[in-house]
Amino acid sequence: MKVGYLGPRGTFTEQAVLKIADISETIPFKTIQEVIKSVDSGETDKCVVPIENSTEGCVNITLDSMIFDSNLFIQSELNLPIKQNLIINKFAENKEIKKIYSHPQGLAQCRQFLLKNYPNAETISVNSTADGGKIIKNSKEPCAAIGLSLVADIYELKILHKEIQDNNQNFTQFAILSKNDTTKKLDASKISIAFSISNKPGMLGRVLNLFEIWDLNMTNIISRPMRDKTGEYVFFADLESNNSPVDIKNCLSMVERKTSFFKNLGSYPVYDYR
Amino acid sequence: MKVGYLGPRGTFTEQAVLKIADISETIPFKTIQEVIKSVDSGETDKCVVPIENSTEGCVNITLDSMIFDSNLFIQSELNLPIKQNLIINKFAENKEIKKIYSHPQGLAQCRQFLLKNYPNAETISVNSTADGGKIIKNSKEPCAAIGLSLVADIYELKILHKEIQDNNQNFTQFAILSKNDTTKKLDASKISIAFSISNKPGMLGRVLNLFEIWDLNMTNIISRPMRDKTGEYVFFADLESNNSPVDIKNCLSMVERKTSFFKNLGSYPVYDYR
Repeated sequence: MKVGYLGPRGTFTEQAVLKIADISETIPFKTIQEVIKSVDSGETDKCVVPIENSTEGCVNITLDSMIFDSNLFIQSELNLPIKQNLIINKFAENKEIKKIYSHPQGLAQCRQFLLKNYPNAETISVNSTADGGKIIKNSKEPCAAIGLSLVADIYELKILHKEIQDNNQNFTQFAILSKNDTTKKLDASKISIAFSISNKPGMLGRVLNLFEIWDLNMTNIISRPMRDKTGEYVFFADLESNNSPVDIKNCLSMVERKTSFFKNLGSYPVYDYR
Repeated sequence: MKVGYLGPRGTFTEQAVLKIADISETIPFKTIQEVIKSVDSGETDKCVVPIENSTEGCVNITLDSMIFDSNLFIQSELNLPIKQNLIINKFAENKEIKKIYSHPQGLAQCRQFLLKNYPNAETISVNSTADGGKIIKNSKEPCAAIGLSLVADIYELKILHKEIQDNNQNFTQFAILSKNDTTKKLDASKISIAFSISNKPGMLGRVLNLFEIWDLNMTNIISRPMRDKTGEYVFFADLESNNSPVDIKNCLSMVERKTSFFKNLGSYPVYDYR
C-alpha cells in the first residue's frame, strides 16, 4: 500500500501517516493538490491530508481539491494533538543554546515558552520543522530545533524539553482518502457531504430542514464561494451517522434533489489520539 | 488615530492598514490576540486583522478572539488581492540570482514561477516576506526576495518581476475593529453575528428559518466548537444588510431569543480592492 502525504519528512502529516497500518511505501509531495492528484492518477493508493487547524496547510485547499478536483472518498479521520519539543544537538548538551530553528508556525506555537526560557536565543525560520532538525544535526554550534519527537527520531537527536507548545488544545484533523467508495459503509461515525445552492434567502434552511425530517445531526458546516461562479456557495457539512441506513440514504437523496450540486465524500470512522 | 496590526512591517496586514485614512501612528504586534487586546486596553484606537484566506494568520484565531475575548465591533471589511513580486538587490541587477528569500507561504505561492524561471536558485525561508527584503538589502551577493511591492518601498529595492503569484484569485479578507458600536449603522452592506445553539438535530435550521421569515440573506457561515464546552457549537455568520432596519432589528432580536449565546459583531461596509 503506497501512501502519499504532504512532505517533507518529520512533519505532522507524516505523524498521521504512521498511524495507518499496512503501508509498504510513503511518498511525500510538495502541495496538497499534488498529494490528492497522486491517488487519482494511481501513483499512490491512499493519501493523508490535513483538513482543519493544521500548522502546515490550509483547510480551504484540501476542501476545494476534494470537492472539485478529485473523485476520492474519505476512509477515516484522525485527530492528532500538536505537541512540540525542544530538540538539541550534541554541542547544546552542556553549552548555552544560541540559535533555535523551526518553521515560523512552530516558533509561533512556542513563543511564550521561548520568551520565558530562552529570551536571548536567536530564533531562525526554516522551511519546515523537519528542516530544523537537519540543520542542527549538521551544525557545529550548540543549537536547537522545535519540532515533533519524530524529528528527533529521524535525525537521532536528543529532546531537551517535551511538549513546549503554549496551547495544549491545538490539534490537527487529518483525512485519509482513497478511491474506495465509502458512501455505503454502515459502521461509520461520520458522513461528509458537499452541496451547492443558489444565493437566495432560505435556501440553506430548506436543506437543513431535510436533516431535521430524518433526524440527522449536523456537527460542522463551512460555506465557500463556488469556484468560478460568483454568487453561488458550496457548503461542506459533517453529519453524525448513528441513524438508520435507510434514513441516511433517503435523506441524502432528497438533499441531492434539492441542491444544484451534491457530492457524498464518504462515511467513515474517527480516530482521536488526543 | 493609533492603529494596531499583525506585524512585522511590509506584510499584507500593513498593506491593509495603509488603506485606512486618518492614521497618526501604526503599531505592529506579534500575534492576532495581542492586536485585538491592544484596542480593548486602549493602547490603540483601531486594529486590522485578517479574517479569511490570509497568508499570515489563521481565521480561527481571529474569529475566536473577536467572539470570546473582546468587545470590539467590525468597522469595515477590506478585500486585498495577494500580489507577490520578485524584489532584487543592486548586485542582482546584472548577475545571476543565487538565493531567493521569503516566508514559506510566499515561496509556496510562487512555486510554479520559481520552477520555471529560477530552477537553480536556492529558496530560503525567513520569518516574514518583509524580513526577506531586509536580508537582501544587507547582502553583498546577488539575491532576491519575494514580497509585496511595499517591501521594495520600505527597503528601497527594485522589483524585477511583478505579480509572480501562481494563483491570481488569492485574496485576503481583513476586518477593521474598534470599540465604536456599529450594530445600529444603517448605510452598511454586511452584518456579522455569532451565536451558539445546542447540538440537537434541527437547531441551526430553526435559526436559519428566522432569516427566511424576515428575508435576510446569509452569505457565509462557519461552525466552530464552543470553547470549553464539548458538544456545543458557535456559528459565525454574515448577512446582507439591504433589508429594512426594522426587519433586521426584529430578526436579530428573535435570533437572540432562540440561541444560547448571541453576539452582534457589527454592520459595516465592504471595500473590495481586487
